[in-house]
Amino acid sequence: MVRIVALNEIQEALKAIDPRREIIPAIQDGFVAYSQGRVVVPPVGELTFDDPKGETHIKYGYIKRDEVFVIKIASGFHGNLKLGIPTCHGLMLIFSQKTGELKCVLLDEGYLTQVRTAAAGAVVAKFFAPRNIRRVGVFGTGIQGRMQVEYLTYVMDIPEVMVWGLNQDEVDGYRADMEPKGFKILTTLDAEDIASTCHFIVTATPSCLPLLAAAQIRQGTHITAMGSDTVDKQELDPAIARKADRFIVDSLSQGLLRGEMYHALRSGLITAEKPIELGAAIADKKRHRASDEEITVVDLTGVAVHDIQIAKLVWAAIEKKG
Amino acid sequence: MVRIVALNEIQEALKAIDPRREIIPAIQDGFVAYSQGRVVVPPVGELTFDDPKGETHIKYGYIKRDEVFVIKIASGFHGNLKLGIPTCHGLMLIFSQKTGELKCVLLDEGYLTQVRTAAAGAVVAKFFAPRNIRRVGVFGTGIQGRMQVEYLTYVMDIPEVMVWGLNQDEVDGYRADMEPKGFKILTTLDAEDIASTCHFIVTATPSCLPLLAAAQIRQGTHITAMGSDTVDKQELDPAIARKADRFIVDSLSQGLLRGEMYHALRSGLITAEKPIELGAAIADKKRHRASDEEITVVDLTGVAVHDIQIAKLVWAAIEKKG
Repeated sequence: MVRIVALNEIQEALKAIDPRREIIPAIQDGFVAYSQGRVVVPPVGELTFDDPKGETHIKYGYIKRDEVFVIKIASGFHGNLKLGIPTCHGLMLIFSQKTGELKCVLLDEGYLTQVRTAAAGAVVAKFFAPRNIRRVGVFGTGIQGRMQVEYLTYVMDIPEVMVWGLNQDEVDGYRADMEPKGFKILTTLDAEDIASTCHFIVTATPSCLPLLAAAQIRQGTHITAMGSDTVDKQELDPAIARKADRFIVDSLSQGLLRGEMYHALRSGLITAEKPIELGAAIADKKRHRASDEEITVVDLTGVAVHDIQIAKLVWAAIEKKG
Repeated sequence: MVRIVALNEIQEALKAIDPRREIIPAIQDGFVAYSQGRVVVPPVGELTFDDPKGETHIKYGYIKRDEVFVIKIASGFHGNLKLGIPTCHGLMLIFSQKTGELKCVLLDEGYLTQVRTAAAGAVVAKFFAPRNIRRVGVFGTGIQGRMQVEYLTYVMDIPEVMVWGLNQDEVDGYRADMEPKGFKILTTLDAEDIASTCHFIVTATPSCLPLLAAAQIRQGTHITAMGSDTVDKQELDPAIARKADRFIVDSLSQGLLRGEMYHALRSGLITAEKPIELGAAIADKKRHRASDEEITVVDLTGVAVHDIQIAKLVWAAIEKKG
């Protein structure tokens, strides 16, 4: 029997899944399995549309000797804003790896991608955040700009957050939503305010131009760059990758084609020897942050293994509920 | 609102769709649109499994300026037979080409692929069958061996069918199922019986070795070869492609990689100039069968445009029912 699960049921099921003890460890395990070659992830399938502009990605794969495989379909149609409907759509499909049978359709409309990406940010913080963060800096006022902060609370204390946005309305909206959740929010339209006061920075924008220059990055700063996942998008000056003591990416093979690693290689400011794959870094203590003076940069472009991991968790929770 | 449609509802909806006036013309239009470059069909996505052996294919695409795009997932796990469950599984997903929204989930378990493939066989017969067929020859006693014959009745008279199988049980089972449907069925285990008595032949097997040799093919014979859709599978002696007056394939680009065209090119018995794409042949009367003396061979490997076409028809029928 195929189980069809609507978004509200998925959100309900997530309440029964402990982010600290279940989601974040599952995503961490996914990074490690991926870097150990225990995950089969073919190249992303893609459809693009001209009128109106839109794109659809198909990410799929499986962990070897696991019970299931997962296919995720995610679309982005930015013109939808004018129509008053969400820009992102999609679903996840869970199949048996033993029989090919469809087991579960998660009609998540892109929400589980947000969850697994936020959890990936928390995994990064576990291994690369400096100690005693006084203020977290966030570029981007969208869903990820919010969820990254919420998930960071599971692995570190966040006394206050400074958010950067394109205009005052954006950052005011962010503050209005986040303060009732118990966060102390400062706002700015000047990237330098974040660079000069925050040692833990998350970039979560669709920017195609660097938001931060290498000269702005102080000793002891960590940056999680999770906005760029295409050839065009870029959030960091490529010289930051050179300046960093540790430059980590979620996928070396994807980093050749997209994200901050792609731009840094293309600029010639680093060579392909510099980036370390996150799962390999997690598995090797010598590759974790070693002092509060290091500059660390982690570039996340998104790998299907996280879709597999979050889909499995949600499905298990739904099955358990009966 | 996403519409979720189970297999029994799909089969019910199909009863309201006229094969002659709706399904076969839609598949024919799909071939033409494909050959005219009006269809976007990226390379097939693929996952393979070792233990147990299995494979999953993702076929997807859209007709330009259409309302929807379609993603089809189809799996084959042959070890399922031992478990008493079907070997083929899968579903089709229909999305809006304007907004990316998921519109309909057709839980067809591979059935619509069978329907569109059978309809493709009927389209082929319209343009390449000799006149006055006395007996249709069928290689293969599976679902396609049956459905091809059923769909052929929509475009030609079939006085009798001779079926070839690997053993007497198989062909007896075929006869037992098909005679109650009004077909006169003869059976054989010798391919020569079909080659020497049938001018219209369908091959619908998973064979990896030729079932027919070039010397067996008489003047005036038509062959629809629809079993081979991979590098390994092959149903015809490659010399048949050379001997044929017309050698037609559903997709020139896929034919470079799989099916009878692939084997014929690889053998060096034909050059890449010989195969004509089916949609181009349909659109040009000079490329249809011109006499009852010609030998014609049509090699079908399956193109996503047919999945698009059948999914749209079924969805429209379901929406109409309300």
